[in-house]
Amino acid sequence: MEYPKNFMEDLVSLAKRRGFVNQSAEIYGGLQSSWDYGPLGSLLRQNLKREWMRRFVYRRSDIVPIESTLLTKREVLQASGHEAGFTDPLVECKVCHQRFRADHDIPEGRDHKHNLTEARQFNLMFKTTLGAVEDEGSLAYFRPETAQGMFVNFKFVQEAMRMKLPFGIAQIGKAFRNEITLGHFIFRTLEFEQAEIEYFVMPAEADKHFDYWVGEWQNFFADMGIKGDRVRLRPHDKDELAHYAKAATDIEYKFHFGWSELAGVANRTDYDLKQHIEHSGKDLSWFNEEAKEKVTPYVIEPTLGVDRLFMALLVQAYHVSKGNDGRKDGEVTLKLHPRLAPVTAAVFPLVKKEGLPDLAHEIVAKLRESEIGFVQYDESGSIGRRYRRQDEIGTPYCITVDFESKDDDSVTVRHRDSLKQERVKIQELVNYLQELLKTY
Amino acid sequence: MEYPKNFMEDLVSLAKRRGFVNQSAEIYGGLQSSWDYGPLGSLLRQNLKREWMRRFVYRRSDIVPIESTLLTKREVLQASGHEAGFTDPLVECKVCHQRFRADHDIPEGRDHKHNLTEARQFNLMFKTTLGAVEDEGSLAYFRPETAQGMFVNFKFVQEAMRMKLPFGIAQIGKAFRNEITLGHFIFRTLEFEQAEIEYFVMPAEADKHFDYWVGEWQNFFADMGIKGDRVRLRPHDKDELAHYAKAATDIEYKFHFGWSELAGVANRTDYDLKQHIEHSGKDLSWFNEEAKEKVTPYVIEPTLGVDRLFMALLVQAYHVSKGNDGRKDGEVTLKLHPRLAPVTAAVFPLVKKEGLPDLAHEIVAKLRESEIGFVQYDESGSIGRRYRRQDEIGTPYCITVDFESKDDDSVTVRHRDSLKQERVKIQELVNYLQELLKTY
Repeated sequence: MEYPKNFMEDLVSLAKRRGFVNQSAEIYGGLQSSWDYGPLGSLLRQNLKREWMRRFVYRRSDIVPIESTLLTKREVLQASGHEAGFTDPLVECKVCHQRFRADHDIPEGRDHKHNLTEARQFNLMFKTTLGAVEDEGSLAYFRPETAQGMFVNFKFVQEAMRMKLPFGIAQIGKAFRNEITLGHFIFRTLEFEQAEIEYFVMPAEADKHFDYWVGEWQNFFADMGIKGDRVRLRPHDKDELAHYAKAATDIEYKFHFGWSELAGVANRTDYDLKQHIEHSGKDLSWFNEEAKEKVTPYVIEPTLGVDRLFMALLVQAYHVSKGNDGRKDGEVTLKLHPRLAPVTAAVFPLVKKEGLPDLAHEIVAKLRESEIGFVQYDESGSIGRRYRRQDEIGTPYCITVDFESKDDDSVTVRHRDSLKQERVKIQELVNYLQELLKTY
Repeated sequence: MEYPKNFMEDLVSLAKRRGFVNQSAEIYGGLQSSWDYGPLGSLLRQNLKREWMRRFVYRRSDIVPIESTLLTKREVLQASGHEAGFTDPLVECKVCHQRFRADHDIPEGRDHKHNLTEARQFNLMFKTTLGAVEDEGSLAYFRPETAQGMFVNFKFVQEAMRMKLPFGIAQIGKAFRNEITLGHFIFRTLEFEQAEIEYFVMPAEADKHFDYWVGEWQNFFADMGIKGDRVRLRPHDKDELAHYAKAATDIEYKFHFGWSELAGVANRTDYDLKQHIEHSGKDLSWFNEEAKEKVTPYVIEPTLGVDRLFMALLVQAYHVSKGNDGRKDGEVTLKLHPRLAPVTAAVFPLVKKEGLPDLAHEIVAKLRESEIGFVQYDESGSIGRRYRRQDEIGTPYCITVDFESKDDDSVTVRHRDSLKQERVKIQELVNYLQELLKTY
């Protein structure tokens, strides 16, 4: 599917205007490649993270969550290889002092051909200083990935939770990279969020688990609405694998700027645990009671970028009517999964009189108590205008209280995608919506 | 209520052993005053944050959430006054080079009386460098409070969500302070999480809203179980107010080391918005349609430290039996609120045969699908041992599948606090637990 002209401009404009995304420190001209999530963005992210947790933690027996600090002791990132090797080759134009990644295409200068320096290795980690004195001993990093927090807690988690192989540790959290090449809205940012599992397995079973997780990851994306001809799996060639990885497959999405990684699954082998065993001197193996032997597990790592998935969800959901689907030409609908939509239901009194607002407020209160999601009340403008306002932010269910509502104790539920309207008894409304939201 | 001897040692030991909290980078000797949350800690935190969001965002019309970046543009923290003034007075002993806050009690040195330097002002913010060159222009901070992200987004949120005064912006997120005085487990840490509301009001109504929020905050803490003689309100004296505040009240908890702040409500006046108006040159006022006039709102700020509340919840819940409550002397129960407990229900087959494990697994699957919370299966050891294991982590409901279960389609539900046991039909189990979890 091709992108229409101005697609991203329109989407970014909608995201700003309706409170999904704003540039960080926008009133001060913005912080480079840093974005704040507004109310609707935050609600969508909360829903997305909840779905992920529900699926990979709450519904399973073999995965438990942790939350490790973003501030990371230097030794951890020395052992993992990040301090020495988490670098990009950097070149600078001697004329205009713009900086580029030497391994990326370098765009033409505005009024000159760039005259580049030799490439030097530039470490992508943000460092800081702990305590009152800035010296080598006080250096610490803000983590460049959530993964290491899971590795250094492997034994703690395994013992405290009495886990047996195979088992996983899951974490959603922020990570930071001082990227040289930036841009594409929220796709590549200095600060980002990962949702990641480190799944510890018997070395002989690593390939089997790798395949399983590629499938699970793909299923999750598909269930969230990321499917069709804009999604593909891309197994890495041997020569592009990270030094610690035996195999890796990306889930890519075709944005307007090309196929790009949303998520991936990697077989990290026993590299990380062995590095931490060596550097810490601690025993991070698992004792296999059945075979009576110590095992250093292999690690299968399914990971996804929350911000990238967020962006793909908006792109995938963004739909402009051609005027042949019951909407007017040019009207925008965000066809987000109902469980992800920032506003789950909106309630409208048909008019601002005859007690309709009161009844609508009662219904809002009842829906909020039921915990179906975020619920809005809107009495402003015509019903058509209110529908369009909700369509544009992806609200799956609009509920109208009309003149008959008091007599027949019913309201009209209008479905975003089918435009179907159904008359539903007020006392059955919560169940009705809960049933719709159950299925995915 | 007095704390027994070794109270904190015992609690910290339980927190470590059962997977609530571990020192960050513990295998490398630990990162100073930094803590990772293990599986049960993470589940408890997820529950706590969900309750907060549910109460202050999802159930209300007047508060919306945002998520602003932790990396913060320097200009934001210059305007807010943090770069110039977010400092503690630091002194150093010329003999042993230990550092102390000049305004705190300074402990005796181990083998000498400290010989202190003059106090100098030490800024508590963690700074870092953006981009490839470390110079003044590339300086940025990791935020020392979530609040500024709400202030700089005031206009964006107000316009996008069409909010009218009074309204609030809510945020849960990490903040960082390079504290000199540290310690007391997770009470004062370099990295911490805030749950904060900036509530924008008409200046003339600020006092009324301040009182309202002190009440709401207190109600929330009480509903989560933080009540009784270990909790008190402490209004600030005029001379201890922050320079931007007109009034402030803390909610304090009596830990073993004394009364300490868990949360607070402050009247920040229009200080922050005015600073950002002045420094950014942007209009951050709100136009009052009714009075046809521009208003720079006052801000009432109810805030709480998630880690501190977490610690208070553990302290408050920690209960050691004296042998007169149906438990044996010395047995530990965490009497956490059922909605906060990391494990909501545990399911046990009475024995590992005659199909009881299969039926127990079926029940586990059904409970997981119902989204009542995190559910564990345990078949290891005697039933009494399994109860104690769950009591120690605060699981409110233990469900046993026994020999009669297949005949009467029922299980026994054992309640953590009352020790009451009830026979419940398997097909009614989800509803039964949902009803219990509804009330608070």
